[in-house]
Amino acid sequence: MSGDAVMVTPDPAAEIQVTAQIQQFYARHMQAIDRGDVDAWLDTFTDDATIANNTRPEPARGRATIATVARRLVADAAGSGVVHRHWTGMAQVARQPDGTVRATSYALVVQTPGPAGSAGPGSAGSAAPGLWRSTVCVDVLVREDGRWRIRQRNVTHDDVR
Amino acid sequence: MSGDAVMVTPDPAAEIQVTAQIQQFYARHMQAIDRGDVDAWLDTFTDDATIANNTRPEPARGRATIATVARRLVADAAGSGVVHRHWTGMAQVARQPDGTVRATSYALVVQTPGPAGSAGPGSAGSAAPGLWRSTVCVDVLVREDGRWRIRQRNVTHDDVR
Amino acid sequence: MSGDAVMVTPDPAAEIQVTAQIQQFYARHMQAIDRGDVDAWLDTFTDDATIANNTRPEPARGRATIATVARRLVADAAGSGVVHRHWTGMAQVARQPDGTVRATSYALVVQTPGPAGSAGPGSAGSAAPGLWRSTVCVDVLVREDGRWRIRQRNVTHDDVR
Repeated sequence: MSGDAVMVTPDPAAEIQVTAQIQQFYARHMQAIDRGDVDAWLDTFTDDATIANNTRPEPARGRATIATVARRLVADAAGSGVVHRHWTGMAQVARQPDGTVRATSYALVVQTPGPAGSAGPGSAGSAAPGLWRSTVCVDVLVREDGRWRIRQRNVTHDDVR
Repeated sequence: MSGDAVMVTPDPAAEIQVTAQIQQFYARHMQAIDRGDVDAWLDTFTDDATIANNTRPEPARGRATIATVARRLVADAAGSGVVHRHWTGMAQVARQPDGTVRATSYALVVQTPGPAGSAGPGSAGSAAPGLWRSTVCVDVLVREDGRWRIRQRNVTHDDVR
Repeated sequence: MSGDAVMVTPDPAAEIQVTAQIQQFYARHMQAIDRGDVDAWLDTFTDDATIANNTRPEPARGRATIATVARRLVADAAGSGVVHRHWTGMAQVARQPDGTVRATSYALVVQTPGPAGSAGPGSAGSAAPGLWRSTVCVDVLVREDGRWRIRQRNVTHDDVR
């Protein structure tokens, strides 16, 4: 069950380089979806990527299906005026013998409500930010065209048993 | 009082390697306790480790004592149905002249309540996650058997003065 | 609009070194202000630094002005008994052709209220920590005297539109 059960031969310099690349990957990946740039976010998945989670019986399969879901979620958030910020942390990054990387991270979504009475630009919102989701995210990433992409994502929501 | 007051001669490559190792250490360490794997978590402490904090007068001394406390906390959380996720961040990692590392980090515990009315597997929880604890964590880590272990931990809870 | 639009020629070792330095910079920078060490915090800005945000029309210009604002904020927090912890994460670090670094991060402030009825040292606070601010922070950092300093900061608060 451990995220570091399967490891390739240790190579400190390679470990550090891959871990640094994966950290930068998640920063780009999460900032893209949070600013509503669905195209940039989709480009961080492989064509045949799957996203599974413990709240739906069937995973989303392929970039086209993932795109549909993502565009709906971004539109919903924009419509309700909330701002989401996805944070990942505590990542265990394990290089696999086949060259892929398995990253087991915590992921939080911070939600800031829209201004209660919209008083135009510069108006201060009344409500504090809060935590919307707490999850564990297990990704399998592959190297394509000189960059990392997610081939398989498995999200476990902490509020669903 | 600064976490970087005592430093060994700078060596950029060594700094980066140690900092990367300490980051991976905390990921393994925190994921172990959060999934209830007390044995894996205990193995991240030395035999003579101590844990002190500002909520109890006496520190816990030795792995056996730490084990007793940890098993009780894990059982309490499991009994109440909550899920805890420990996040560390903002780590200042300072190599000491004696070969140990002093890491001064922030540590948060995110708590997700159990489902209000347990409706079986797959039922959505009603309550949002929240912050349970905000602390500053100062660890002294030593290298043993090719891995880092905590010899001394000092936790300051922000809600206790 | 992307944080990685302008990049210098890739050099993996240099990228990793700079990214590690910037991470350590933010740990020192944020821990300084949170423990009320305004002098140490001010030393992480250049003399001519500016701080702009979307809640005030005019940026703060120069270290002296920044000092005045910072000392007031630290005094306000101390007076109300709250503890603040600044967390940055999801940092996109981009080296610029002119040698500066552009870092686009998320920044959260965690706030722990003071003890409701102060019952002296060791008394447990009654209120849980919460999120006080969720922001996006874009910094331009320059290398001075062998260390990084912020020359320009731009903060976007998520609750202000």
